[in-house]
Amino acid sequence: MAVTQRSWILARRPSGNDIAGALDLRELPLPLPAAGEVLIRNELLSMDAGTRLWMTAREDSYNPPLPLGTPVVGLALGTVVASRHPDFAAGDLVRCFGQWADHSLVAPAATMIHRLERAIDDPRHYLGVLGPSGWTAWYGVVECGQAAPGETFLVSAAAGALGMLAGQVARARGCRVFGLTGSDEKCRWLEQQLGFDGALNHRAADLEGRLRALCPQGIDLYLENVGGPLLDAVLPNMALRGRVAVCGLVAQYASEAPVPGPYRFDQILIKRLNVFGFMMPDAFDRHADFTARLKTLLDQGRITLPFDMSAGLENVPAAYARLFSGANLGKVLVRLAG
Amino acid sequence: MAVTQRSWILARRPSGNDIAGALDLRELPLPLPAAGEVLIRNELLSMDAGTRLWMTAREDSYNPPLPLGTPVVGLALGTVVASRHPDFAAGDLVRCFGQWADHSLVAPAATMIHRLERAIDDPRHYLGVLGPSGWTAWYGVVECGQAAPGETFLVSAAAGALGMLAGQVARARGCRVFGLTGSDEKCRWLEQQLGFDGALNHRAADLEGRLRALCPQGIDLYLENVGGPLLDAVLPNMALRGRVAVCGLVAQYASEAPVPGPYRFDQILIKRLNVFGFMMPDAFDRHADFTARLKTLLDQGRITLPFDMSAGLENVPAAYARLFSGANLGKVLVRLAG
Repeated sequence: MAVTQRSWILARRPSGNDIAGALDLRELPLPLPAAGEVLIRNELLSMDAGTRLWMTAREDSYNPPLPLGTPVVGLALGTVVASRHPDFAAGDLVRCFGQWADHSLVAPAATMIHRLERAIDDPRHYLGVLGPSGWTAWYGVVECGQAAPGETFLVSAAAGALGMLAGQVARARGCRVFGLTGSDEKCRWLEQQLGFDGALNHRAADLEGRLRALCPQGIDLYLENVGGPLLDAVLPNMALRGRVAVCGLVAQYASEAPVPGPYRFDQILIKRLNVFGFMMPDAFDRHADFTARLKTLLDQGRITLPFDMSAGLENVPAAYARLFSGANLGKVLVRLAG
Repeated sequence: MAVTQRSWILARRPSGNDIAGALDLRELPLPLPAAGEVLIRNELLSMDAGTRLWMTAREDSYNPPLPLGTPVVGLALGTVVASRHPDFAAGDLVRCFGQWADHSLVAPAATMIHRLERAIDDPRHYLGVLGPSGWTAWYGVVECGQAAPGETFLVSAAAGALGMLAGQVARARGCRVFGLTGSDEKCRWLEQQLGFDGALNHRAADLEGRLRALCPQGIDLYLENVGGPLLDAVLPNMALRGRVAVCGLVAQYASEAPVPGPYRFDQILIKRLNVFGFMMPDAFDRHADFTARLKTLLDQGRITLPFDMSAGLENVPAAYARLFSGANLGKVLVRLAG
């Protein structure tokens, strides 16, 4: 069996959010799996903001930078076509950190690969509610954030996959749930379709004042994945002893140089806030527990996640850009030609 | 009995750290204590950086701003000369939040007044190890910071009262203890007199790099009371899952407008740090416990605190300025004419 891999190669370090300009689509021969490796035909690619961080040549990030000239690494769902690993066989449906390519060649130990049940109404859930996005929401809201009934919960990028999931998890925990997003239309969607108690367009004037009017008692738990001016609008609206759970700083991923932290950093002292970073991979060994809890909510109809679909490997850069322009509603996925 | 009060009045909001220019010394008749009030002849005034915050007209601080035209409020130690409160009598030695004046007139409920034992070798301890500075060190290092044996502990403004006390408390808890301060002489003092494992002059070049060389395993707990560029040098040197306990941001107290937060705010995410604010008054009801624990260390010779003495009410502004110029070594006190 001779296989080629059409893949998006990181050809240059991206300038700002111009991801397309940093990537080249190449077709190269792919070696057969070595001992311990698995070859997967990718069917769905998951577009995740964190990937942007790895494209930058920063040595102090939480993953080493992606080497130039290699395929971009990303979460993928597909079918095993060849395996030299005892736990996987041709025909298995799997999810793993593979490549932005038509095929992924992976060594299971380092790629969080899981064999998945085909008996599910929509396998896309494995990249949404029942995958890393869902786990991050659960880990952040319930475990790290300790969301409690009656508390006021706020999430930024609320119409993205993590924002939607986090809001619904917090709602299931009995919180009053609010979101920040980039358009009035998305605000209405969150309120009407997902049952958010309120949402604000962060592009309109005086976000700080509008947030104060919406949450006059203060915000007990803020899930932050944006940073920048949004955080400055939120900090003065935190409740005394509120918690800020930081799992992303999308607004500054494109910066080559360090950017100023929140101008209202003093609120951490004045309000005795607790600001902490968290990353789902730290709790990866608990994914089965998280999945079971999220599956219960999914089966009960208490959590849902729309998919923002693109098709075709050639459209990966455009799909990825939707995360940063705010065009997306829900989980951004690219379906590859079967 | 007719009493006058010579007091430092907040005449204007200070510009920058020009405290002297904001204060006027006035002599005014003082009413006799009303029901529930206590009149104290001040013997020692404690100079504390937090007072600077109350001089600014910021409504969002943790105390309301001090009204213009009223005496500056501050921690004082003195003898009761008249009391209409059942718990206090003429002749009692007390500590309270009184006034920067020769006398303090206080209503006990709001001023943390305590009657003190005269049988102590040096009553100044009541404004040092056995007072709010000591309590803040204990509360921050042990209770909030959860300092554990073998951890690496760092404190800024290390040659100030809180820095010295926090370092010694951390050392008593089994930490390796490091400090940042403003001169090579103070660094040597901390190492030689207080047993710090190391100290760095924050005014010299490449603080971030020198800190990395001093603490190559990373800092587990950082007690921050300065902010600004120091915090930016420290954040990249925090250990994974390190804690940053913020109890002051002296570097920005003089700013009228919000100042940028740490440029390395992203380290909170990358290192999964926990950054939290704390204030001793939140734990005020536990002061007796803190005092007992600190007294044990004091009696064992495991904690000490030098006093940076000035004399005379007229020298209060100059003494207070020592906190912000970095001239002080230890606790800044002003002794008033008996």
